[in-house]
Amino acid sequence: MTSILIIGGGGMIGQKLAASFGKNEKVSLLDVAFPEKSDLNATRIYGSIRDAKIMEKMLNSLPKTIFFLASVVSGEAEENFLKGWDVNVQAFWGFLNNIKKLHVQSEGQYKPKVIFTSSIAVFGSPFPEKIPDNFLSAPRTSYGAQKVCCELMLNDFIRKGFCEGLAIRLPTICVRPGKPNLAASSFFSGIIREPLNGLKANLPVSTDVRHWHASPRSAVGFLRHAESLKQGVLTFNSAINMPGLSCTVEEQIEALRALAGNDVVNLIKFKPDEKIIEIVKGWPQNFDTQKAEILGFKAEKSFEEIIQIFIEDELKTNVYKN
Amino acid sequence: MTSILIIGGGGMIGQKLAASFGKNEKVSLLDVAFPEKSDLNATRIYGSIRDAKIMEKMLNSLPKTIFFLASVVSGEAEENFLKGWDVNVQAFWGFLNNIKKLHVQSEGQYKPKVIFTSSIAVFGSPFPEKIPDNFLSAPRTSYGAQKVCCELMLNDFIRKGFCEGLAIRLPTICVRPGKPNLAASSFFSGIIREPLNGLKANLPVSTDVRHWHASPRSAVGFLRHAESLKQGVLTFNSAINMPGLSCTVEEQIEALRALAGNDVVNLIKFKPDEKIIEIVKGWPQNFDTQKAEILGFKAEKSFEEIIQIFIEDELKTNVYKN
Repeated sequence: MTSILIIGGGGMIGQKLAASFGKNEKVSLLDVAFPEKSDLNATRIYGSIRDAKIMEKMLNSLPKTIFFLASVVSGEAEENFLKGWDVNVQAFWGFLNNIKKLHVQSEGQYKPKVIFTSSIAVFGSPFPEKIPDNFLSAPRTSYGAQKVCCELMLNDFIRKGFCEGLAIRLPTICVRPGKPNLAASSFFSGIIREPLNGLKANLPVSTDVRHWHASPRSAVGFLRHAESLKQGVLTFNSAINMPGLSCTVEEQIEALRALAGNDVVNLIKFKPDEKIIEIVKGWPQNFDTQKAEILGFKAEKSFEEIIQIFIEDELKTNVYKN
Repeated sequence: MTSILIIGGGGMIGQKLAASFGKNEKVSLLDVAFPEKSDLNATRIYGSIRDAKIMEKMLNSLPKTIFFLASVVSGEAEENFLKGWDVNVQAFWGFLNNIKKLHVQSEGQYKPKVIFTSSIAVFGSPFPEKIPDNFLSAPRTSYGAQKVCCELMLNDFIRKGFCEGLAIRLPTICVRPGKPNLAASSFFSGIIREPLNGLKANLPVSTDVRHWHASPRSAVGFLRHAESLKQGVLTFNSAINMPGLSCTVEEQIEALRALAGNDVVNLIKFKPDEKIIEIVKGWPQNFDTQKAEILGFKAEKSFEEIIQIFIEDELKTNVYKN
């Protein structure tokens, strides 16, 4: 029986990832909160990654694969400077040190695979039309800077042989089910999700804003594929841009119109928000993800496909339904 | 009276930097060790950057400019993994947090300039012929990864307005006076310094190895120039590659021959060291430092010039003389 630990397992991606495992896999989830209802075949452990004792206990069962998804989101990291650095970097550093301790104690026998979710927020403008795989990580947000630090730390632990793993830089995940969150990117999901649920949605930026998306289903696919890769196929730099779909807000809206009609689209109201407009200006718009594609990572090819996945996975079945 | 704090002020660059200030400046030096003799007009404080109390005390005098030079060197950071991360990242993080605390306590009045010495070790191969200013920081050593983390942290503190400052990425400093150190780059100085002192020197790599150098005098010049820059001239990315001289070991040796003759050059013995050969393979060889040049940073134009500076500053006058 393979043992899997999902740190941040109570979140949207964590729950979907847990659901992707079969009955032969022993899945443990660590988080500060979980959805009320769940029929997941997984052990829930309530606790924070800032709690050294909990973290030590979680690792003492020597999970073979550890997905590290826990993070303070971008908006909150920007508002609460110290909390962001503390949770997003210091807790990850403590986690890696625990792994190293167990690796050394076991005389090198314990060498788990650590899959860390990084983000395209590691990049800061100015950007080329398509961001290549070897583009400079010069973030313009605390969240982005924190993610790069974690990538560098993980990479050094891997290089030293204390663990295996990689950092995958997720596109903006869209359409997120559930409620809006504190991420400045929340509206990209909101303008699709709310209207499909018969609710009004605010659009805080103009429709020519271009951005980089992948569905929650793709995100889970990336994580599972990352787990399946042999360390040898990776180069010395274990942080990889994930594939995604580049489209404008207008293209998002037109895809919604094609699938759900004018009445649904009319629920979107343009309500400019200068703060969000400013943040989004500094965000990546498009990528050339050759490396990830060669390694076999796959994402959607159209925004219709992304909406279709939301309809199938959320509107019809999911506990996150509004 | 301007107050200056040099953290790592007991080291070679720290001492030269301290000597560059006039009598109207109050200079304090923090380090774990200092040269025995010194006629510097500066206050010495013995202590480690890992000692939170000492660090707090040093900052309580609210120095206007802080040069942060203290670091575990590359070879030691590679040998002693936890010490490297602890000193090179965690202590710097603690330092920045102290700055922030004082900034907040003073209601924004205290906003020092922090000049951090980073390194070209932030870059990992493969390299283009000349590394441009916006080249990816993908280090292949712990030391390099630690320097990038510090750059990102400092950048975020600057962006948030807690301090001013910049990170300057020094070339390999050559010719270093004194004894060889644990840096894998130590031989670049050794093959010039030892023969000029009538001593044998080992060359561990082949003569076609190309590398990126600047003199200690240039290093001090970079630091002083960095101090003089207004924050507004910098872009959002406050880590800058310093100018330098790209040359091969053969060019180094021929410059030594031109200045000191065959007998001196004959003291260099080729004694290959596989470990060093392997490390040096991953090092940058040449840069296109447009950004630094536009900002007015200057370095040597020939290796003869670099040797000449060593002769003037060390062989004739300095306490570090062998």
